[in-house]
Amino acid sequence: MTPRTAVEMHPQRWGDPAVAARSELPESALGLVELAFGLQDRPPVSGATPPPSALDAALLDGLRAIVGEEHVLLDDETRALRTRGKSTPDLLRARAGDLSDAPDAVVRPDGHAAVTAVLAWASEHRVVVVPFGGGTCVSGGLAARRDGFTGLVSLDLVRMKRLLAVDEVSMTATLEPGLRGPEAEALLAEHGLTLGHYPQSYLHASIGGFAATRSSGQSSAGYGRFDAMVVGLTAATPTGSLDLGSAPANAAGPDLRQLLLGSEGAFGVITSVTLRVRRAPAVTTYEGWRWPSFDAGSDAMRTLAQAGLLPTVIRLSDETETAINLADPGSIGGTEDPGCLMITGHEGTTEQVADRQAAVTQVLADLGGTPLGTGPGEKWVHGRFEAPYLRDALLDHGVLVETLETATFWSNRERLYAEVKAALTASLGEGSLVLCHVSHVYETGCSLYFTVAARQGDDPLAQWHVAKAAASEAMIAAGATITHHHAVGTDHRPWLAREIGEVGVRVLRAVKAELDPAGILNPGVLVP
Amino acid sequence: MTPRTAVEMHPQRWGDPAVAARSELPESALGLVELAFGLQDRPPVSGATPPPSALDAALLDGLRAIVGEEHVLLDDETRALRTRGKSTPDLLRARAGDLSDAPDAVVRPDGHAAVTAVLAWASEHRVVVVPFGGGTCVSGGLAARRDGFTGLVSLDLVRMKRLLAVDEVSMTATLEPGLRGPEAEALLAEHGLTLGHYPQSYLHASIGGFAATRSSGQSSAGYGRFDAMVVGLTAATPTGSLDLGSAPANAAGPDLRQLLLGSEGAFGVITSVTLRVRRAPAVTTYEGWRWPSFDAGSDAMRTLAQAGLLPTVIRLSDETETAINLADPGSIGGTEDPGCLMITGHEGTTEQVADRQAAVTQVLADLGGTPLGTGPGEKWVHGRFEAPYLRDALLDHGVLVETLETATFWSNRERLYAEVKAALTASLGEGSLVLCHVSHVYETGCSLYFTVAARQGDDPLAQWHVAKAAASEAMIAAGATITHHHAVGTDHRPWLAREIGEVGVRVLRAVKAELDPAGILNPGVLVP
Repeated sequence: MTPRTAVEMHPQRWGDPAVAARSELPESALGLVELAFGLQDRPPVSGATPPPSALDAALLDGLRAIVGEEHVLLDDETRALRTRGKSTPDLLRARAGDLSDAPDAVVRPDGHAAVTAVLAWASEHRVVVVPFGGGTCVSGGLAARRDGFTGLVSLDLVRMKRLLAVDEVSMTATLEPGLRGPEAEALLAEHGLTLGHYPQSYLHASIGGFAATRSSGQSSAGYGRFDAMVVGLTAATPTGSLDLGSAPANAAGPDLRQLLLGSEGAFGVITSVTLRVRRAPAVTTYEGWRWPSFDAGSDAMRTLAQAGLLPTVIRLSDETETAINLADPGSIGGTEDPGCLMITGHEGTTEQVADRQAAVTQVLADLGGTPLGTGPGEKWVHGRFEAPYLRDALLDHGVLVETLETATFWSNRERLYAEVKAALTASLGEGSLVLCHVSHVYETGCSLYFTVAARQGDDPLAQWHVAKAAASEAMIAAGATITHHHAVGTDHRPWLAREIGEVGVRVLRAVKAELDPAGILNPGVLVP
Repeated sequence: MTPRTAVEMHPQRWGDPAVAARSELPESALGLVELAFGLQDRPPVSGATPPPSALDAALLDGLRAIVGEEHVLLDDETRALRTRGKSTPDLLRARAGDLSDAPDAVVRPDGHAAVTAVLAWASEHRVVVVPFGGGTCVSGGLAARRDGFTGLVSLDLVRMKRLLAVDEVSMTATLEPGLRGPEAEALLAEHGLTLGHYPQSYLHASIGGFAATRSSGQSSAGYGRFDAMVVGLTAATPTGSLDLGSAPANAAGPDLRQLLLGSEGAFGVITSVTLRVRRAPAVTTYEGWRWPSFDAGSDAMRTLAQAGLLPTVIRLSDETETAINLADPGSIGGTEDPGCLMITGHEGTTEQVADRQAAVTQVLADLGGTPLGTGPGEKWVHGRFEAPYLRDALLDHGVLVETLETATFWSNRERLYAEVKAALTASLGEGSLVLCHVSHVYETGCSLYFTVAARQGDDPLAQWHVAKAAASEAMIAAGATITHHHAVGTDHRPWLAREIGEVGVRVLRAVKAELDPAGILNPGVLVP
């Protein structure tokens, strides 16, 4: 069964165009923004069109013979909608009317065999193939290099949305890559099952994208990262097919699944994934805790992780993010220090939730946390996928907003936080805001997710480029990862080389050369 | 600090030579064995010596210049002790006096730099390098091919036994590969820490071997597989060094750690691993449960795994293994059906153990398990590392004993069990015994570990080869893995190609060619 096609995102904004059109800041917030950054009027330009398709009739006929005439799309709107992803630099370019990276065609295969045929066609004619799922990428993963190639096609997986198999004994499900988050959950819900994978991009992002980028969702403490859910996968490459996953785990050599996970369309196209699923929770509850400091809250997270007592959701905002999230005209000016807000969420059976919640509550209370009841938790759940709309509204008013993230081991958390924050603040200058939260925790470490806001100068792209580079340098200098869950794309590629070293880079190149000798899969993405 | 060197194993038997010399079957068991298989007298031949070293003086001088004169060993005994591993075929060859695979020299580097230098020397002179940790391999991983090469050296990691770092905030420890299981635990115990990794080979196997083979220990339900403990690693390859592990998890491309884990010395030499550690448990308790059938017990394991309620240890013997383990002359002939024995073990703080044990007990009792108290658990703990000694005693009496193992998803468990058992029984013939247990469980599936016993014919090597091939065919035909935790070596290589497919094989070859262009690292091992 195939659910209805998810709505296409606005070409210059995040999300559902109907919602995006209404995403204006409330009057009350406008005052705060004006105070902080000044209000500018920076509306997106309209009427931009992509350059003409570089593919000639003979080439297009070849594609049409594979996927069918109606699944090779050349119209401006479809091509514009497949141009780049949704990072702030991507949006700044789109808002400026820059569609120079638009694909020459959008191709919609209906399954593994058609993907294989498209890759063979593309290899023969030296046409770049950019796999496209939800288009939510924020690391430049959809901006493949095309110089030296005949053209570039967007391989839209929108027709590959089947639930291929459900195994309720093994608790696995096999899904096609084009399913968006809610579509996959709807299909699984018919069986009383869930993945529990809810990144901020959830409403639009796809199963294939989750796998190809090693996504991690807001409930990762309970359900695990996406890569930890994958027990099997199939992939089409220009030189053959992969079908991996003979057991939950094994000792049959290196785990090649882990080589395709995170391969970002550069090694092959993931055409199905078999995922560990869970029973849909009977009970979900989210609540807030106040901590006197980011350090105290982080230490509490570490204690829970190392005691094997993690809730399903656990996240902690630093002092600045807490203050900003609480800022509203009614309460502003209050003298009480809000401290740091932690959200904890529990999902499962009634008994599981009761047991875990009791144990977690005891630990957090013992460590000095102050329970704030379910109010903050409900507020977080309600708005958990909304932040990107706010970014667009701020961009409209000349506020540069972007996020970046990293991860490290617990003993390095404080240093990494301080150094990335300092790098961003120094780069973006007086009056900029740098917020941070921890939203993914492990026994040995955690992620750090930064949000910045600053007044846009004349060249906001360059302004961000400098800040991003400074933050990235700080991450690598601190021995941390360049990305915990946003993937490498083109934006992180220069730093990946330093993270995995020259030998690591050579391994990636060797695998790519073996699987994609013509180099048509997402050139310039991932592989340094 | 470096603990004392672990004892070297007997060249023709498992384990500590002092223990091995005494490993005779008790009088009472002899009668049972005679009844089942007949008693033969098949003592190992003595006095065999390896062929002369193929390395000339100039080559040896090159090696000596790297590691020091006293760390290039040529004597017969040292070379004999580094010949092959401890599978039953390995032992049959060793018992027959076949030392034709002996290394030409045993080389003992003292760290990453020396390993790197040895690999450069070996690449230049086309000398095969076989990394050697504990020598416990049971899949032919120490039997590299040497045709077309100048010679073969055993790279003994015995001098690399340091605890390089402990991070009690992040709960990680960095260990060198030459540490044997007990040595690593002793070093960690000084900090109140543990790995909790106890494969049957624990007393002799090494940290490097655990990593290179994706080992899984008897407490995997609680502490995880070894590969799941690894958060970082360094490796020396003939073309450069790898230093991986910038965070517990990340989205910085494919997880290259997972490409070195399971690489069995064919891609590089793992020179350190950074592992997630746990606090040493305050309480350990092991108990027995009786199940009316293997299916009922397996279903109970699945229920626990999918409820997130696993004990630290959980294992289940099938009807035959249960009967054999209980067989003693005193109780034999009893009419009571022993059913299937499950061992559960809990480790942790007093509170953790109490909570988990109560929850597990409730589930198992609800599902029809009969508690047997701590007796069977204590008996299992006491003998958990002893079985290989028993194998030697049985080989002395002409009984062919060997083990093999696989894993699959839960819905395929029953089929896999039936088909592998049938294949072994058909091959080994009337009177053979096939025992099985489940000892590693996951939410989505489990391992199956088979032990066989049969009367040795004139050519026990050939006898086993046929049975092993039949079992391996059955595994692959059932869509299961060729090995859950014994690794590929040379023995499983033909079936690995079918498990990961032609494209998977090409990926392994490409990585090997990139890292080891001269092909000197364990040729013939792992890579089909």
